[in-house]
Amino acid sequence: MRPSGRAPDQMRELTFEPGFTVHAEGSCLVSFGQTRVLVTASVEEKVPPFLRGKGQGWVTAEYGMLPRATHTRGNREAAKGKQSGRTQEIQRLIGRSLRAVVDLPKLGERQVIVDCDVIQADGGTRTASISGAWVALRIAVDKLLEKKALVDDPIRTQVAAVSCGIHNGNAVLDLDYLEDSTAGSDGNFVLTADGAIVEAQLTAEGETFDEEGLLRLLRLARIGCGDIFAAQLKATGR
Amino acid sequence: MRPSGRAPDQMRELTFEPGFTVHAEGSCLVSFGQTRVLVTASVEEKVPPFLRGKGQGWVTAEYGMLPRATHTRGNREAAKGKQSGRTQEIQRLIGRSLRAVVDLPKLGERQVIVDCDVIQADGGTRTASISGAWVALRIAVDKLLEKKALVDDPIRTQVAAVSCGIHNGNAVLDLDYLEDSTAGSDGNFVLTADGAIVEAQLTAEGETFDEEGLLRLLRLARIGCGDIFAAQLKATGR
Amino acid sequence: MRPSGRAPDQMRELTFEPGFTVHAEGSCLVSFGQTRVLVTASVEEKVPPFLRGKGQGWVTAEYGMLPRATHTRGNREAAKGKQSGRTQEIQRLIGRSLRAVVDLPKLGERQVIVDCDVIQADGGTRTASISGAWVALRIAVDKLLEKKALVDDPIRTQVAAVSCGIHNGNAVLDLDYLEDSTAGSDGNFVLTADGAIVEAQLTAEGETFDEEGLLRLLRLARIGCGDIFAAQLKATGR
Amino acid sequence: MRPSGRAPDQMRELTFEPGFTVHAEGSCLVSFGQTRVLVTASVEEKVPPFLRGKGQGWVTAEYGMLPRATHTRGNREAAKGKQSGRTQEIQRLIGRSLRAVVDLPKLGERQVIVDCDVIQADGGTRTASISGAWVALRIAVDKLLEKKALVDDPIRTQVAAVSCGIHNGNAVLDLDYLEDSTAGSDGNFVLTADGAIVEAQLTAEGETFDEEGLLRLLRLARIGCGDIFAAQLKATGR
Amino acid sequence: MRPSGRAPDQMRELTFEPGFTVHAEGSCLVSFGQTRVLVTASVEEKVPPFLRGKGQGWVTAEYGMLPRATHTRGNREAAKGKQSGRTQEIQRLIGRSLRAVVDLPKLGERQVIVDCDVIQADGGTRTASISGAWVALRIAVDKLLEKKALVDDPIRTQVAAVSCGIHNGNAVLDLDYLEDSTAGSDGNFVLTADGAIVEAQLTAEGETFDEEGLLRLLRLARIGCGDIFAAQLKATGR
Amino acid sequence: MRPSGRAPDQMRELTFEPGFTVHAEGSCLVSFGQTRVLVTASVEEKVPPFLRGKGQGWVTAEYGMLPRATHTRGNREAAKGKQSGRTQEIQRLIGRSLRAVVDLPKLGERQVIVDCDVIQADGGTRTASISGAWVALRIAVDKLLEKKALVDDPIRTQVAAVSCGIHNGNAVLDLDYLEDSTAGSDGNFVLTADGAIVEAQLTAEGETFDEEGLLRLLRLARIGCGDIFAAQLKATGR
Repeated sequence: MRPSGRAPDQMRELTFEPGFTVHAEGSCLVSFGQTRVLVTASVEEKVPPFLRGKGQGWVTAEYGMLPRATHTRGNREAAKGKQSGRTQEIQRLIGRSLRAVVDLPKLGERQVIVDCDVIQADGGTRTASISGAWVALRIAVDKLLEKKALVDDPIRTQVAAVSCGIHNGNAVLDLDYLEDSTAGSDGNFVLTADGAIVEAQLTAEGETFDEEGLLRLLRLARIGCGDIFAAQLKATGR
Repeated sequence: MRPSGRAPDQMRELTFEPGFTVHAEGSCLVSFGQTRVLVTASVEEKVPPFLRGKGQGWVTAEYGMLPRATHTRGNREAAKGKQSGRTQEIQRLIGRSLRAVVDLPKLGERQVIVDCDVIQADGGTRTASISGAWVALRIAVDKLLEKKALVDDPIRTQVAAVSCGIHNGNAVLDLDYLEDSTAGSDGNFVLTADGAIVEAQLTAEGETFDEEGLLRLLRLARIGCGDIFAAQLKATGR
Repeated sequence: MRPSGRAPDQMRELTFEPGFTVHAEGSCLVSFGQTRVLVTASVEEKVPPFLRGKGQGWVTAEYGMLPRATHTRGNREAAKGKQSGRTQEIQRLIGRSLRAVVDLPKLGERQVIVDCDVIQADGGTRTASISGAWVALRIAVDKLLEKKALVDDPIRTQVAAVSCGIHNGNAVLDLDYLEDSTAGSDGNFVLTADGAIVEAQLTAEGETFDEEGLLRLLRLARIGCGDIFAAQLKATGR
Repeated sequence: MRPSGRAPDQMRELTFEPGFTVHAEGSCLVSFGQTRVLVTASVEEKVPPFLRGKGQGWVTAEYGMLPRATHTRGNREAAKGKQSGRTQEIQRLIGRSLRAVVDLPKLGERQVIVDCDVIQADGGTRTASISGAWVALRIAVDKLLEKKALVDDPIRTQVAAVSCGIHNGNAVLDLDYLEDSTAGSDGNFVLTADGAIVEAQLTAEGETFDEEGLLRLLRLARIGCGDIFAAQLKATGR
Repeated sequence: MRPSGRAPDQMRELTFEPGFTVHAEGSCLVSFGQTRVLVTASVEEKVPPFLRGKGQGWVTAEYGMLPRATHTRGNREAAKGKQSGRTQEIQRLIGRSLRAVVDLPKLGERQVIVDCDVIQADGGTRTASISGAWVALRIAVDKLLEKKALVDDPIRTQVAAVSCGIHNGNAVLDLDYLEDSTAGSDGNFVLTADGAIVEAQLTAEGETFDEEGLLRLLRLARIGCGDIFAAQLKATGR
Repeated sequence: MRPSGRAPDQMRELTFEPGFTVHAEGSCLVSFGQTRVLVTASVEEKVPPFLRGKGQGWVTAEYGMLPRATHTRGNREAAKGKQSGRTQEIQRLIGRSLRAVVDLPKLGERQVIVDCDVIQADGGTRTASISGAWVALRIAVDKLLEKKALVDDPIRTQVAAVSCGIHNGNAVLDLDYLEDSTAGSDGNFVLTADGAIVEAQLTAEGETFDEEGLLRLLRLARIGCGDIFAAQLKATGR
């Protein structure tokens, strides 16, 4: 039995609240249960220096956690004067995941910066961020298409992410904080709507795993991402 | 006529959503029209080093702005590696305002850290932060009273803040971004519910002002804070 | 009775020593009693990036305190690797105060950077800095006029600043450190020679104040700034 | 055909030079072909603050790259004043991998800090680092056992890492820089000598992958790690 | 002929103004011609961590240059967030020079921090700093002796520094900025009043030098330091 | 008797291993006994901003120490976020020493960055760095000459450095860590192959010195550098 009473292959309640803020070209508040992340997509009509004049666009991401998003207050990264290794690892992952489904030359010489700020954390902030980031990006790109700044849609397909892990000997989907902090091993999968794996990251903490375990977790991830893909479509009115 | 159609002494729509997040001892989402700030109050059972063993508590504040809270995206302070002068100025003001209504020895040897994170900005983020900070602090202290960690209430009275300014030659209350960015001079007033002024900060930008103007703005501030005090009471069930 | 024996509306001894250093286009050593600030105005024939090509100039300020300007040594900000919130707050105030009396388009595409470095502190370092900054700026601009780099004088009027506060229940002018550290509430006023208020900042520490108190302090500030304006004129040979 | 002429499941020439430096408790120079990493293990008789008094030890890692380890010179992180996200990601991975095979309570209240400094880079610096780190750690722990500072061996088994990827449509083992920079997708596997997976990280760049591909890469990783385990044993005289 | 008209072995006008500031235990404004450095000596009744409990004191120094001490304004190190290599090199030299004439155990478990802040620069800021630092230190130690905090004088002798160089083929003493920036080679000598060399630093810029040249410069340095020693004694009333 | 059994004027075993790494235009591993420094010379076809368009090249150096190059592990400068004063002092010295023997206009508008990274430290890391830096620079410049990017050789002569000091009352050459840490006074000399002194830095620690001592140390330095010059020639095949 999972602490939350969920079935092993059951996601937490999943919501995407599109247009949560008014200024960003795209935005949404994504909730995976108690985990809530505010995502905004900002379109800038220029690319970073390393891409200037190359006829292509760029998608990048930044990630942050409000100091009291967690059970006990963490120090504010802006006050400490640097982003933690964990923060940088996560924002690099979000950026790569989005770029995996975007045709950068089709985006033109512009950059989309996706900001994922965790308002409340209960496990799975990086997977919620990636899943919500796609929604914010989709909305921002739809606006570019609508006002004819873009002719061809540069987004090839959907991308979503979910965590899976071995908890009390059982493979379970979408771990909350309670499960996450006691899981023997867990991982994050980033999948596309057309069935491909973009990223797979598995870590044994205490308990190691093998091929069998890896495949079992991946099977759960496919189930979870299926739910997310459906919710993303609904949120973006597709 | 104000751009928003408001009367000169009319506040924007004012809401306090208490308990917006689950982990913090106190929290609220405060809205002054489109300006929205998430405030959390975190109680820590120790004081900063300079107060150790002095038999009193401390209240401090930190302030941040999500990168895309504004019309165009600002750089993330955590990524730049330092907080701007504006950020530091505001968080010092919030802390002083709260301490003005708290009896620190009665708080005991504990610290309350209030985090004000601007989700969406449309003028008046510092005044909304102070006003919301009192609500979050009130909720956190109520919990301490409830569980008998405190016997006497250390909060002496309410504190609230509002901006006033001269826009198109008229003294107006609670400026939104449009008014703020074109105001001849403006100021922020921090008042207590028992009628005292805690802070007054007035700045002439373009147009200077005199005693008459100062008093006119202060009169508006008293009206605005009256509205805020009422809403604070309602939000905290008093 | 004030600790220094001064009358309530009496400034400390006030001196401006123009041309204190040889390299800067303008400089002065300003003393408000024991508080001594070395101010230099440096003219650069270019504007900061955000103003390029806009046909106007800029005036900005930086502020610092030598480590042993104070009773006990403070850490050197250069060694700590960052400027405190207090430092940034003060240098922003100095810059705004100067810009309030300068016609920036008339200054042409050049920047004046005013450095205020506190050699010795005894209360009122920010008000001495602003008052001395005007003298250094005046000297630097006079040189530009003299060598015909400027035709029209961009400085509209004088600007000066002074602190006032409630000490032992009495409203007093130009607080020294002893008064400042025990004042119930105090404030800084930045005024122009033609009678306008540029900035007013009042803070209650312990004791709050009301309209009456605010006006009383303002009245003192007008007296003090009158003295400063006279001394500024004398120092700049006007 | 691979650019290097190697068979798909063939490692580059693999050497561990134990005792490369004289001061460290354990050290080795590890080479995966042209990739050379100097690894040292430093034993400190105290644990980091978060573990004090918990009766267990700690193993952590730091990673760096000499500026001209690469084809074109990179900026020195010490001069830039911060470690890149990539650096932090890698050193966190090395630390987790080592801790997966160490019984921390058996290590006692001491810390082993493993430094991995890349002298020359040609792809696979993180996998070479992990593989070499085990050798340096083994040597350092052997010294503790020898001088009876430890009675029970805290190292449970060997750990090694290798990269695999799809290059020109073929699954290949231990990618060099040329292959790595053009691989459709690749990953790093961290395995233990008793057959368990500690970490698996796969990233699609351009080409995504599926279960089949994942298992194919994992099979190669098992072959490669087998070679590394043998070389580690030889280097440590076991 | 030297640009200033001085003889080759002639110092610039040399003044020490003791007690220039009121708060520091010791202070002086030292001038070597147009070069003016404000030096303060602060006594702290504790030693840095690495000396705790060792029964000895410590003397250290910090150095800074006001932004407009120089011909063109330099960036403020506190604003840049770090001290330059030059600044650190100089403050390390000042500290070593002072410690060379102080009996640290006799100083007791206290630290003297000497701050040297350049108000105006015209060559020789480091040599003026060292020479003035001794005066400030002497005054601070005299106060400790006077109030019986110290019984034995920990200062063994005087220390002073001066620059020498080859300018237009001639060996000259105490270079000003004009000479310094065109000197073929130059050096700084730190000498004690009892004839010993504490530090000698010679650098060839363009022109190299040999034993002969080295000795010639050293002879000049002895002459210059003689003048400084006399002025130090006079300034400290000995 | 020296701890190592060496004669007073005897260098430690001296080796230059040219071409130690494959990517850099020039490289060598230099050993002065147990002190080992990896030096690379990187050629960049552009000059730093302050030299653009001036028709000359630049040579600069950076210095680092691997965390466990020393007896006890030091903190990684990249992790601390800044380079120590010692590091900056040394890298400035290396740069000046190299520039003293290079005709910068002949180098053309390109920069050579020399990185000196200490792999193992046993005293004399800065002198080994300078001596090895010349070898790496020589190799890099030879490649430029070979491929006709340069026609005239910009390197005028050899440069080398060695330390000397007074240990147990005797003047000794090339101090190892044991001697260095107990020397009464010591210094570093940078000499050219044609007999000139480029830099001389002497510091008294405990024991001061005089002209006699200075000349004695310089005489030893000439002996030591003679050995180094011969080894440099051999290493570069001249």
